[in-house]
Amino acid sequence: FPIQNLPFGIVRPRDSAPRVATRIGDHVLDLAAVHRVGLLPEVPPEVVEARNLNPLLGRDRATWRALRHRLSVLLSEGNGEIAAAGDAGDALLPIDEVELLLPVEVGDYVDFYSSLEHATNLGRMFRPEGDPLLPNWRHLPIGYHGRGGTVVVSGTPIRRPWGQVTPGEGPPSFRPTQRLDIELEVGFVTGGGNPLGTPIPVGAAADHIFGLVLVNDWSARDIQRFEYQPLGPFLGKSFATTISPWVVTLDALEPHRVPGPPQEPEPLPHLRRAEDRAYAIDLEVLLAAGGGDPTPISRTTFAGMYWTIAQQLAHATSNGATARPGDLFASGTISGADPGTEGSLIELTRDGPIRLPDGSERRFLEDGDTVILHGWAGGDGRPRIGFGECRGTVLPALS
Amino acid sequence: FPIQNLPFGIVRPRDSAPRVATRIGDHVLDLAAVHRVGLLPEVPPEVVEARNLNPLLGRDRATWRALRHRLSVLLSEGNGEIAAAGDAGDALLPIDEVELLLPVEVGDYVDFYSSLEHATNLGRMFRPEGDPLLPNWRHLPIGYHGRGGTVVVSGTPIRRPWGQVTPGEGPPSFRPTQRLDIELEVGFVTGGGNPLGTPIPVGAAADHIFGLVLVNDWSARDIQRFEYQPLGPFLGKSFATTISPWVVTLDALEPHRVPGPPQEPEPLPHLRRAEDRAYAIDLEVLLAAGGGDPTPISRTTFAGMYWTIAQQLAHATSNGATARPGDLFASGTISGADPGTEGSLIELTRDGPIRLPDGSERRFLEDGDTVILHGWAGGDGRPRIGFGECRGTVLPALS
Repeated sequence: FPIQNLPFGIVRPRDSAPRVATRIGDHVLDLAAVHRVGLLPEVPPEVVEARNLNPLLGRDRATWRALRHRLSVLLSEGNGEIAAAGDAGDALLPIDEVELLLPVEVGDYVDFYSSLEHATNLGRMFRPEGDPLLPNWRHLPIGYHGRGGTVVVSGTPIRRPWGQVTPGEGPPSFRPTQRLDIELEVGFVTGGGNPLGTPIPVGAAADHIFGLVLVNDWSARDIQRFEYQPLGPFLGKSFATTISPWVVTLDALEPHRVPGPPQEPEPLPHLRRAEDRAYAIDLEVLLAAGGGDPTPISRTTFAGMYWTIAQQLAHATSNGATARPGDLFASGTISGADPGTEGSLIELTRDGPIRLPDGSERRFLEDGDTVILHGWAGGDGRPRIGFGECRGTVLPALS
Repeated sequence: FPIQNLPFGIVRPRDSAPRVATRIGDHVLDLAAVHRVGLLPEVPPEVVEARNLNPLLGRDRATWRALRHRLSVLLSEGNGEIAAAGDAGDALLPIDEVELLLPVEVGDYVDFYSSLEHATNLGRMFRPEGDPLLPNWRHLPIGYHGRGGTVVVSGTPIRRPWGQVTPGEGPPSFRPTQRLDIELEVGFVTGGGNPLGTPIPVGAAADHIFGLVLVNDWSARDIQRFEYQPLGPFLGKSFATTISPWVVTLDALEPHRVPGPPQEPEPLPHLRRAEDRAYAIDLEVLLAAGGGDPTPISRTTFAGMYWTIAQQLAHATSNGATARPGDLFASGTISGADPGTEGSLIELTRDGPIRLPDGSERRFLEDGDTVILHGWAGGDGRPRIGFGECRGTVLPALS
């Protein structure tokens, strides 16, 4: 976590209330403590003494930028302002002395379906008889609403859900899912600022996007399969969604903007790309069986998503719907074209199970398995902009 | 609004901050004012001095009941406690001196599809080749997540949305919807109380349901038709959902509980009805063209819904998903079996347009049209438990 990153999150030091923090190396900077000594005049105290980033998200982009700029000055080598303010001496805390909490109180959670490769893979599996891509897919970023209230922070255990499934012919039975899967995604968190009835133009989307998080959209494929027609996924997804503890700002990712793949046919004018808004973020999925060591099972990139975050937000508000401070929009599963670049187990194991170092095999997750997502931009001599990990361990179903 | 009702809402008196209120006849009782003189010891001041009912929803059912019981005592004929507390003399305000605000800050919004007649009607229209009811429909209350952030209070104008539609063959075009429709629904608002991973049993659902509201789930049928496969409705619904200003408690509706229609096949044990949780609520839809008089266009009942609110909440949490204070769960369009009992225009006009008194016809809504939903239980000599109206006027699309 170099000074070029400075992501935002919520930490709870021991025996204290939650507050806003940024991360620098192996430390977090307690913004409430820095504010108390007068060094963050950009925002009122309630923005940094908050249980979530929502009050900050409710400010405008100029304020987000001014605050982050101030932090970069305060944390620059040779700056002694924090040290000079005696009362803020404990503002810099070792990362292992704080608890990382859910950074955002999520209002609405939208999940897109914006990877061409993932949509093609899933279409082949769920509708083997026809064209894997439905006629609308290249015209708009298909998405649906998930459950915002079950978004949890990295580290939260994931209880295996029950649901109605139809393993054979005949009526459904109610039992724990046998097909617990992951979905590797990147999500963006919005500020506010568009009144009801007023779309956000594709060229202005970045003004309304605070930053990105890693997302694991846990999925129960057997529950999803029985329920999803005609209104889409519901309980097969709504039991839990894990996000990374740090929201990485668009400004930190600015050096890593890329054009995104060509689009054919060209989207309608309101969705036509106004600028490069894909991001070269490398992604990795690791799986640890029981207490074992994590093994990489997938490696891919966010850069290849067919629809960019700007197109997604422009589409989601093109009917006049608002984006609230704290709304989360996830990309959909990120899969590449080559074997080993898929973002879900159902895709990774199409041609056979994954073999783990302990000799066991996986098609879907077993109790005790831990899944870890990593994501970073840069590296190889450039500052590495990371998200921290997005981790969850599967607990057995309730009996 | 008799003393048997005492619904909860949020009012803003002129030049004042919003606060919690109840309704009695043509007046509202300002609960913050009553609390200030010490007459509502059941709750702390922040519960009634709130911009929404969420802090109250976060309390338990015993507190909800104690508060409503206290109000019924204070408002009983002959009780002089409020009058005796001089400072609360302005607690009772004429309804036309306050603004009625959105009662709940909606977190997640779930929309079910629980009317057998509506699901059958829509299935015939959208999938004419097959069985109108899909195989899952009688096994679980089909539902999906809508957009909580665009739930608005009665009276909020509804801007006609733009979207991608395919009126003929060929690629889509982006234009204002030509098929703006309504959906007559009843929704319930939850408290909290189920930790992540812990389902709410069907027999305990009522402990987590604060009360009911009327819901108009505005729908753009042409936008919906192009986008909804494979992940369900998105922008065809997310532009606006109107709810009534008053949340009517389950206790007020207790005399109007009915069994609901028989279910065949019997649901799985976790969804089997534990008690009568359908409600005999009469419903009416009125349409006013331009500045004209409202004309009744549909009359139906909530009593006939196939899935009850208890079954809906048990299903929605059966995978361990939480319900937050302020989550909204709507019934889905309420349609009866007979002509004139359908809850949407697309159903009402299947066999021809509606004729209005001014001689005009409607298949879908035109700019300037006003739709009003009414709902009530009782009447005919019994106390009438009403919701107030759920109203919206269509504004022209942005150019």
